[in-house]
Amino acid sequence: MEIIRTIADMRAWRKTAGRVAFVPTMGNLHAGHLALVREARQQASKVVVSIFVNRLQFGQGEDFGAYPRTFEADSQKLIDAGVDVLFFPDEQALYPRVKQDFNVEPPHIQNELCGAFRPGHFRGVATVVTKLFNIVEPDVACFGKKDFQQLHIIRAMVADLDVDIEIKGVDTGRAEDGLALSSRNGYLSPAERAEAPRLFHNLDAIRQRLLAGDSDYAGMEQAARQDLEAHGWQVDYIEVRQADTLEIAHAGERHVVVLAAARLGKTRLIDNVDVRRD
Amino acid sequence: MEIIRTIADMRAWRKTAGRVAFVPTMGNLHAGHLALVREARQQASKVVVSIFVNRLQFGQGEDFGAYPRTFEADSQKLIDAGVDVLFFPDEQALYPRVKQDFNVEPPHIQNELCGAFRPGHFRGVATVVTKLFNIVEPDVACFGKKDFQQLHIIRAMVADLDVDIEIKGVDTGRAEDGLALSSRNGYLSPAERAEAPRLFHNLDAIRQRLLAGDSDYAGMEQAARQDLEAHGWQVDYIEVRQADTLEIAHAGERHVVVLAAARLGKTRLIDNVDVRRD
Repeated sequence: MEIIRTIADMRAWRKTAGRVAFVPTMGNLHAGHLALVREARQQASKVVVSIFVNRLQFGQGEDFGAYPRTFEADSQKLIDAGVDVLFFPDEQALYPRVKQDFNVEPPHIQNELCGAFRPGHFRGVATVVTKLFNIVEPDVACFGKKDFQQLHIIRAMVADLDVDIEIKGVDTGRAEDGLALSSRNGYLSPAERAEAPRLFHNLDAIRQRLLAGDSDYAGMEQAARQDLEAHGWQVDYIEVRQADTLEIAHAGERHVVVLAAARLGKTRLIDNVDVRRD
Repeated sequence: MEIIRTIADMRAWRKTAGRVAFVPTMGNLHAGHLALVREARQQASKVVVSIFVNRLQFGQGEDFGAYPRTFEADSQKLIDAGVDVLFFPDEQALYPRVKQDFNVEPPHIQNELCGAFRPGHFRGVATVVTKLFNIVEPDVACFGKKDFQQLHIIRAMVADLDVDIEIKGVDTGRAEDGLALSSRNGYLSPAERAEAPRLFHNLDAIRQRLLAGDSDYAGMEQAARQDLEAHGWQVDYIEVRQADTLEIAHAGERHVVVLAAARLGKTRLIDNVDVRRD
């Protein structure tokens, strides 16, 4: 595996690489990321993974400084996974003027769901992904469905700005007890880790009710919120949304996604389940 | 010359085209545009010109509906100029969802100079140029220096978003009496056309004073404004700015640009001169 640190070297490698699949990450890699890499290997002969902890997408009071940097372990995992190039730029490479002056501004959905609790987060994601796309110029890029709103925004951005890159969504990896794999799980105490699957179990309970024909979204959301709060969670949101647009779901909607974000101690976890009624 | 109307056909042509130079236009072509095409032919073996009257960059009360559509005359000029492809998408191709949801948002300079009088204009320019760049994927793109603020914003955008396209600025074409070539000159009455070179002559007078070592920018701006207003112009702005950053120029600045926008009857004209003191 080649480790490339500059934009110029990345572009030089790209010119002769043929079809390329790309997995942008912030490092601290777990099995969920490796599932993205496996999908990428199915999509193209060459796979590029980037590791860049993007300051732009962290809000005030968020954990940019404390975000785990685990380069040695990450690069070993990527070698084992058969990645061709690890693109590992430093801040100076991506933000040479320190401040990012031009931003890719997503529409109102950036201020809903997670965006309501993380102002500017999705602008920062859209902007850095645009920059990475412009540098790596992949044919296809893989994103996890765990960050469903992010995947939605990237897909919409690519369509709306005519970016010629195919976006592949990859199913959420889960621990045996159902907890969605996430870098942030590493912050959980043993007691919190034991409690953490409750988020998914509540989403799964809503899925069961939806599949049974129930359309009382507000009632389901309220029941899940109460169960989590009764067990010490602080719930940011639990919402049933249209899967394709992420707009508010109407009763009887055939394809929805149920999204949630909630905090256990200091750790904010997100998860979602996709529900299709045919 | 091949006329391509769809994004898919444009991409298919691009795949085998080799090195491509691109000139985006809104049509109603004049000798200034043809100078851009000549520069493009110097830059690459294949030249693509686009014609698209971009609704996004027109403000309320501006002339989107009345903007001249002169496709037959334009395409003949491009054939004569040796252009390889005319990319001529319709609104449905570039704005299939009618509304553009994602925008490329330039920094504060978008709200100064022309931007102070045309809210949203440079956001619309940055966004459509990003879309066209993503579709045509040129190696180099040519823009006229007459629209100096636009050229500045495109250059800054390309650097800041890591777009791998070289931007060439092309000198302003002028009539013999000094008037900068512009599609909007066609709106002038014969009397206005006779008066119109006064804008350039005032900029040129400021250039002479700057080259003579004068740094009283405010005094020069005021003198030019008074001369124009005395001859029936409505002046939007006349300003001496740093050439590289477009920020406010300090006394003794070595490389400045003097920019102006003023209205003669219903027609808004812009022009600028570049002044370097070594």
